[in-house]
Amino acid sequence: MRAVQVVEFGRPPVVAEVPEPVVQGPDDVVVRIAGAGICRTDLHIVEGGLEAAFQQRLPLTLGHENAGWVEAVGTGVSHVAVGDPVIVHPAVTCGFCDACRRGMDMHCGTWRFPGVDGWAGGYAELMVTSARALVKLAQGTEPATLAPFADAGLTAMHAVRRLAPFVSGGGVGATVVCLGAGGVGQIAVQLLKILTPATVVVVEPDSVRAETARTLGADAVLPLPAEQAADAVLDLTGGRGAQAVLDLVGEGAVPEQAMRMLAKGAVYSIVGYGGGVRIEHLDMINRELTLLGNQIGTHAELSELMRLVAAGRVSLATEVFPLDAAAEAMAAVGEGKVAGRAVLVP
Amino acid sequence: MRAVQVVEFGRPPVVAEVPEPVVQGPDDVVVRIAGAGICRTDLHIVEGGLEAAFQQRLPLTLGHENAGWVEAVGTGVSHVAVGDPVIVHPAVTCGFCDACRRGMDMHCGTWRFPGVDGWAGGYAELMVTSARALVKLAQGTEPATLAPFADAGLTAMHAVRRLAPFVSGGGVGATVVCLGAGGVGQIAVQLLKILTPATVVVVEPDSVRAETARTLGADAVLPLPAEQAADAVLDLTGGRGAQAVLDLVGEGAVPEQAMRMLAKGAVYSIVGYGGGVRIEHLDMINRELTLLGNQIGTHAELSELMRLVAAGRVSLATEVFPLDAAAEAMAAVGEGKVAGRAVLVP
Amino acid sequence: MRAVQVVEFGRPPVVAEVPEPVVQGPDDVVVRIAGAGICRTDLHIVEGGLEAAFQQRLPLTLGHENAGWVEAVGTGVSHVAVGDPVIVHPAVTCGFCDACRRGMDMHCGTWRFPGVDGWAGGYAELMVTSARALVKLAQGTEPATLAPFADAGLTAMHAVRRLAPFVSGGGVGATVVCLGAGGVGQIAVQLLKILTPATVVVVEPDSVRAETARTLGADAVLPLPAEQAADAVLDLTGGRGAQAVLDLVGEGAVPEQAMRMLAKGAVYSIVGYGGGVRIEHLDMINRELTLLGNQIGTHAELSELMRLVAAGRVSLATEVFPLDAAAEAMAAVGEGKVAGRAVLVP
Amino acid sequence: MRAVQVVEFGRPPVVAEVPEPVVQGPDDVVVRIAGAGICRTDLHIVEGGLEAAFQQRLPLTLGHENAGWVEAVGTGVSHVAVGDPVIVHPAVTCGFCDACRRGMDMHCGTWRFPGVDGWAGGYAELMVTSARALVKLAQGTEPATLAPFADAGLTAMHAVRRLAPFVSGGGVGATVVCLGAGGVGQIAVQLLKILTPATVVVVEPDSVRAETARTLGADAVLPLPAEQAADAVLDLTGGRGAQAVLDLVGEGAVPEQAMRMLAKGAVYSIVGYGGGVRIEHLDMINRELTLLGNQIGTHAELSELMRLVAAGRVSLATEVFPLDAAAEAMAAVGEGKVAGRAVLVP
Repeated sequence: MRAVQVVEFGRPPVVAEVPEPVVQGPDDVVVRIAGAGICRTDLHIVEGGLEAAFQQRLPLTLGHENAGWVEAVGTGVSHVAVGDPVIVHPAVTCGFCDACRRGMDMHCGTWRFPGVDGWAGGYAELMVTSARALVKLAQGTEPATLAPFADAGLTAMHAVRRLAPFVSGGGVGATVVCLGAGGVGQIAVQLLKILTPATVVVVEPDSVRAETARTLGADAVLPLPAEQAADAVLDLTGGRGAQAVLDLVGEGAVPEQAMRMLAKGAVYSIVGYGGGVRIEHLDMINRELTLLGNQIGTHAELSELMRLVAAGRVSLATEVFPLDAAAEAMAAVGEGKVAGRAVLVP
Repeated sequence: MRAVQVVEFGRPPVVAEVPEPVVQGPDDVVVRIAGAGICRTDLHIVEGGLEAAFQQRLPLTLGHENAGWVEAVGTGVSHVAVGDPVIVHPAVTCGFCDACRRGMDMHCGTWRFPGVDGWAGGYAELMVTSARALVKLAQGTEPATLAPFADAGLTAMHAVRRLAPFVSGGGVGATVVCLGAGGVGQIAVQLLKILTPATVVVVEPDSVRAETARTLGADAVLPLPAEQAADAVLDLTGGRGAQAVLDLVGEGAVPEQAMRMLAKGAVYSIVGYGGGVRIEHLDMINRELTLLGNQIGTHAELSELMRLVAAGRVSLATEVFPLDAAAEAMAAVGEGKVAGRAVLVP
Repeated sequence: MRAVQVVEFGRPPVVAEVPEPVVQGPDDVVVRIAGAGICRTDLHIVEGGLEAAFQQRLPLTLGHENAGWVEAVGTGVSHVAVGDPVIVHPAVTCGFCDACRRGMDMHCGTWRFPGVDGWAGGYAELMVTSARALVKLAQGTEPATLAPFADAGLTAMHAVRRLAPFVSGGGVGATVVCLGAGGVGQIAVQLLKILTPATVVVVEPDSVRAETARTLGADAVLPLPAEQAADAVLDLTGGRGAQAVLDLVGEGAVPEQAMRMLAKGAVYSIVGYGGGVRIEHLDMINRELTLLGNQIGTHAELSELMRLVAAGRVSLATEVFPLDAAAEAMAAVGEGKVAGRAVLVP
Repeated sequence: MRAVQVVEFGRPPVVAEVPEPVVQGPDDVVVRIAGAGICRTDLHIVEGGLEAAFQQRLPLTLGHENAGWVEAVGTGVSHVAVGDPVIVHPAVTCGFCDACRRGMDMHCGTWRFPGVDGWAGGYAELMVTSARALVKLAQGTEPATLAPFADAGLTAMHAVRRLAPFVSGGGVGATVVCLGAGGVGQIAVQLLKILTPATVVVVEPDSVRAETARTLGADAVLPLPAEQAADAVLDLTGGRGAQAVLDLVGEGAVPEQAMRMLAKGAVYSIVGYGGGVRIEHLDMINRELTLLGNQIGTHAELSELMRLVAAGRVSLATEVFPLDAAAEAMAAVGEGKVAGRAVLVP
């Protein structure tokens, strides 16, 4: 079958012919891919930026945002059947460790991350994963364009659920600032309006994305680069700052700006990465700040999200590309030419 | 009356004769000081280290860990009476803002911090505070040596309560590392054993303090400087790291070591200050870390703590100095010559 | 001034001429009433149904859902000024007890409940309350028709916030059943859609109320009396039952039906009263049920609610009656002839 | 092999010769029983009291509190190995449903309950369970007398963890009342002291059990039948009542007494069963009460409990009987002649 692989860091991925994956263990499932989302993480991988963090070896089949249909199952699998439409949670986990038991699969000590850590991902016709990773979709669902919810959507869901307590308890009109309104941001805006009573402010310089954010429910949009947003947010909140900042950029001057726009008792929720920031302990104490790193999300969160998607309460604009045009599609994503989220279809 | 004041940053404080404070507003209370704890923050203030953060003007009467007896009350005060023994919450707050309403007094937008922000503190015979700041002690209680619980104790209580959820939910034997076993650390160790099921590891190079920590319930003590503790904690936890690190040092190389010893999903709880650390967003995400700044604590936490103290479940070694020897006592604290906590008695 | 008073249980209230209330303590506030909501509790009071529970003595000026403008303030009041539009939290509380400290004002050991417990309520031109009870509204707000949010709205807010954790954590598409769609129910439906991702099912036999519930966001409406709803809810949920039932009726056969429609792990949230139900411990255990009584709500919840109202996210249909027609208005409410909520205007 | 079976309701169980269980599915595990605890539920089963609730068919091998060593494993099992000492969580669950995903295994829609619902339990030499049900103990652990922790211990752990938030947040000195100090009660007392700062009051008329409770940490013991305890608890708390009541009796007049001793905002935590109580909605609201049914507990809670046991922080007195004397041992339990908990050893 065809698979899109990184064969050398720094060069575009190529379409290769590889053996079809097969069921081996009792919990294995082979999924026929309907669509695989292109994530900014895939661009980082191609550039070699995650080689060390994930001990990657090449060739590596990309793709961690996958949806499709069950193609084959192991002997221990009974909760999904061949032909079922499914979306694939990015993590393959053991099910027996304490983290898995508590639903925090992504803390599983022996987890695998297909498409990122060397296991073959879903930029292909078929992929193998574990029964635990699947979320069954309603019969008749067309999975292709849902693929980006597996990671972009799930990350937004996880981050929003974790920051919700910081903006739901008070009586003062909490403000959440969302730095960036790309795919993750667009889903986050919708979820913030579903899961919290907060006022949602989006910082997004691109006018098309800004308008989309407004349509999806943002109460206010600041048409600025996130690198310059702190003063504007402080102005908007009467100098008090935001109770929560959801940072979908995470590099350059953004983390520093994010820290600066936080109110007393506020939370800085980290999703975007690439950069960092120096924190001062006296400031952490005097403003009693909380910083949260967010790693993907739980299986339960993905199920809940897909239910909201099926109910029409959360949506995402996507642009479809053929699998064979993966390199071109990734370049388009890198240049910011794709409105919404790009999906590869085999 | 006598009061110990900072008259010039960088010079020892002096004993001055100042007018007695009086009740002005309906909620004012004058407290006759039985004891005032010496906190490391007082040393920072004398050195000028908090001048900017708190816009301090001189002369400034020190003392934010105070206990004594009610001396006089305003017309609106009925829940305490003249002669009642009391411990004084460090913050003077409005009672009407959203933060006060939710019990998070230290986030009150108009709070005052006597002894720190320019309002006169308790290194004196009398001080004025607000009725809201008082916690009534049982009749007959001798308040003097309880004074350090007002801040050192309350800070430990607040920080331990906030990190408890990170070490109480799992089934894997969570480890909390307490960096430092001075006054705050000794109280924290006791509270960790009362409020969580975690294994408590104390890092403390001083052998007397280490022994005290063991006596107070620490499951293990690493006799190392916190600046070198990361490897030892990783060894002790089989490479996994600690689910929670309570940093009572907060300067030099300690924050970096603290970050390095965190397990996946762990929390870094910040109490000590003076330094800082650079965080990398990819690391915050991959380990899904939480960083918590801790600012003093709530009135309810102070009440609960004093109940545990009265029940004999939490204790603290103190050394008493006369108020007139404040400068000498502070020097002794600075040189680490005081076992436990120093208290000034007028 | 005029005030509507119960002078004998079982007889309609009368309009009486009474002295104007005045500020006495430093925290007192006199409010000029713009509107006072008629609550079903007022009908219970007139019938004598709460005489024992609140040790009521007659005459009693009704009215615990009040909004208006600040008319006069005590010497200790600075966070509101004469002329400010305000809504009045139903409880007058001490501010110093543990419950008040934690924001759970309605658990204050010495609270008063004007309009219910014998203190004069707001079916009058003026009423006196405590500064702590006020929520300031935006300048220019017209308070009259907002009055019902003080109790009907606040009760819905409090109950919805407390049941939210039961329907927000899962991935299975939680269902909340709202028994009744009168005033409290209509507000509850809107809040359930703002604060939870759940599917909201309303049980309401009245076709006008049912249609209103649908318009306000209910995902499904069962046009049945709540006394007969259990089977229908079990059918709708594939036999599984609802994760949460919000009971706004609370009498007759309804509590038993409510219990019967609960899923495993579900919560029965009690707001309506008048009746009761026998629980079997084996059933409580086997289904691991939670039962929650709900008493009004917190000041922070009222503030948050009024912000959502001001933002146009929560609304309530009201019908205005002159204060002098209180008896007629109450009769109309009793006969179910008022769509939405009735408000008395002096 | 030998197994103790109920062959007719109302008659003592008998020792029967039955085929040895074998591994069938990939996740099956056969456990060689070291010890099986006798629970009051076993007596209920023999009397036929759970026939309807669990659709039991006879013969039924009893035993849901089991510990032993792994004897054989299915092809999908790698986290335990033959010979490992283990304690067996009572529930056999699917691992894929939403409840399992969130760690709430006992809400699994397709769970089995060996020893109770017709699946063969552990009053035998061997039993089969699922890999998910096992908690591995440290190498060298002697499992026999640990068996009662599988259910009696786990139930206490689960109930205590769920009531902890009701007694940990305040500043007023919360009181927990534990009705009964049999096996579950003795574990509960220890856990209440480890996991909460509350004052623990035990109600227990048996002087040996009362003394044990005191030794294990109870702050006060009321030597009364639970059927008469409400007045004594109200006296002890100055009329305010208890913030939490843990009812380990659950029948006769006890539930009514339990309700009567609750403070405002309190929780009634239900573990014992057999009876019930009528609740009045007005009372549920006016005192804002919470009622919690407790069903066994989670796998993570069992792991955590076994860690506390291994650390010597939780213990339980047991009396060992040979498997062949099961009927006599059960009779002794029924007559209250066993101090602590009875364990059958094959």
